[in-house]
Amino acid sequence: MHKVIYDTDPGVDDAMALLFLHRHPDVDLIGITTVFGNASIEATTRNALFLKREWNISAPVAKGTGTTIDPSRKEIDWPTFVHGDNGLGNIDVPEMVDVPLDPRPAYRFIVDTVRANPGEVTLVAVGRMTNLALALKEDPEIAKLVKAVVIMGGNFYVPGNVSPVAEANIHGDPEAADIVLTAPWKVVVIGLDVTAVTTMSRRYLAAAAAEGDKAVKLLNDLSQFYIDFYAHAVDDGMMVHDSCACVYVVAPELFSTITGSVRVVCGGIADGQTIVKPDGRRFPPGDWDGLPSQIVCTGVESQKVIGLLRETLLRA
Amino acid sequence: MHKVIYDTDPGVDDAMALLFLHRHPDVDLIGITTVFGNASIEATTRNALFLKREWNISAPVAKGTGTTIDPSRKEIDWPTFVHGDNGLGNIDVPEMVDVPLDPRPAYRFIVDTVRANPGEVTLVAVGRMTNLALALKEDPEIAKLVKAVVIMGGNFYVPGNVSPVAEANIHGDPEAADIVLTAPWKVVVIGLDVTAVTTMSRRYLAAAAAEGDKAVKLLNDLSQFYIDFYAHAVDDGMMVHDSCACVYVVAPELFSTITGSVRVVCGGIADGQTIVKPDGRRFPPGDWDGLPSQIVCTGVESQKVIGLLRETLLRA
Ligand SMILES: [Ca+2]
Ligand SMILES: [Ca+2]
Repeated sequence: MHKVIYDTDPGVDDAMALLFLHRHPDVDLIGITTVFGNASIEATTRNALFLKREWNISAPVAKGTGTTIDPSRKEIDWPTFVHGDNGLGNIDVPEMVDVPLDPRPAYRFIVDTVRANPGEVTLVAVGRMTNLALALKEDPEIAKLVKAVVIMGGNFYVPGNVSPVAEANIHGDPEAADIVLTAPWKVVVIGLDVTAVTTMSRRYLAAAAAEGDKAVKLLNDLSQFYIDFYAHAVDDGMMVHDSCACVYVVAPELFSTITGSVRVVCGGIADGQTIVKPDGRRFPPGDWDGLPSQIVCTGVESQKVIGLLRETLLRA
Repeated sequence: MHKVIYDTDPGVDDAMALLFLHRHPDVDLIGITTVFGNASIEATTRNALFLKREWNISAPVAKGTGTTIDPSRKEIDWPTFVHGDNGLGNIDVPEMVDVPLDPRPAYRFIVDTVRANPGEVTLVAVGRMTNLALALKEDPEIAKLVKAVVIMGGNFYVPGNVSPVAEANIHGDPEAADIVLTAPWKVVVIGLDVTAVTTMSRRYLAAAAAEGDKAVKLLNDLSQFYIDFYAHAVDDGMMVHDSCACVYVVAPELFSTITGSVRVVCGGIADGQTIVKPDGRRFPPGDWDGLPSQIVCTGVESQKVIGLLRETLLRA
């Protein structure tokens, strides 16, 4: 059983991943923390509460941060053309959802929950890395109390999606991501190398919705705008970025990996780029020396990931 | 017939490429310009004169720059562990070679020669890009008078060789490389994606030397130190970086390419990284917009390159 805190900015692909975590029998979803990114922190938190209510999820929701860890960073416009104005593909979502929030900020919720379950918690972070960086700043010792950190973010041997070298989650708060990736805990990095080739077609999702309960039908509804957006890159379907990270938690054997220290470029034209120094490769002394070795996913059995997603979403 | 100015920092792989250019029947080598990089400008210039004399090359040698285009850049130690203390694998090279230099600095030689042969000159640059950047600064109009620019430098979808993301020629003067790659001329970029998989074994080179004249024997002698260095990455052989760029001039069909605008990271942990925005890929507005589309080599028929090298080196 994997005790998971899900740090998320719902977000369409976040929503699918949330339903996957909620329904997978080997996952004990013990908390949802929200972060800004696909929309404002108000919108992503409201969306998390909405999905919690609609899907009858028992895990508490703790509201996270709405600003980058370095306050001098320029704000980026919300990607409304990807996730819609409301972050959930412009389906009807009430402005207020009558579900109580955990009283703590996300970073404090993370620290408390990790301390209460030493060695047992997997942090799955699929938005900007700001909450995790704040938790490390608040209590650096959690690094050795966490079981694993699995993030959706970055790209290594493929292009980025918000610049030729940067992926959106990392680019949204590079300083935070650099803190998370260089901390002395085990991070598994699921980036575009893996997620950009893991796509679910509109037809496949619709078929699952037809077979499934109203939770899957809601997921299908809120995904349509996102699938429309992906027309430029996917043949009538969507990249299931965040779900890939969640699938890794229960089925790491579907991924091929390399290990190495990872840094994030902060500033300049490569702002937000993730860079791995693969273990065993020789370079002159440099910025990757002496850092923990992380796990970087470079390959994936996409069709098996998609199949596992479908099968899990259909567990009622 | 390709009129070529060869801008070089000999350098072991530079030497092989020079002999290739000298001996290929479709190349008219009309000038050699030197640059610092594999060794000091004094050493690389002395080496160019030495090879000109030993190999009876008629093209004039013009001495280039020994400092980066941005004088505030920190100097890098010469890579003596790669090319030897003298830049030619520690074979005996006289301290002074009694061959006259062209009186002009390299950038001026380039400008004059391009102006004298409008539309006809191919610049093949296999060291730092400083001379080319200085030539552009001196006379920006040469950009439209040059036939093509072919450079050995950079890396795109493979790791670097002096940092996880940077290749030595570009890393040695990133500001100069960014000027060269964003100028309105046609640049073909032959980077590590191509050169790191194009290797010649010690045995293969020795067999060519046994069959060839004293020029090839000298090339074999000066390459031994470099082959020893490559033991960490190549099975008793060497990457023939600079020769790949020269082979492209006469046999571009051996390379697969993409097109796109190319920038170089200046500063930070990704210093010296080359980044392409492939044509047709969609990104938010950014640093690659409005720049000329260049040709980036991503694949190569390595065995055919090696075969063409051998065949050409053996033409006496
Ligand atoms: Ca997300
Ligand atoms: Ca060279």
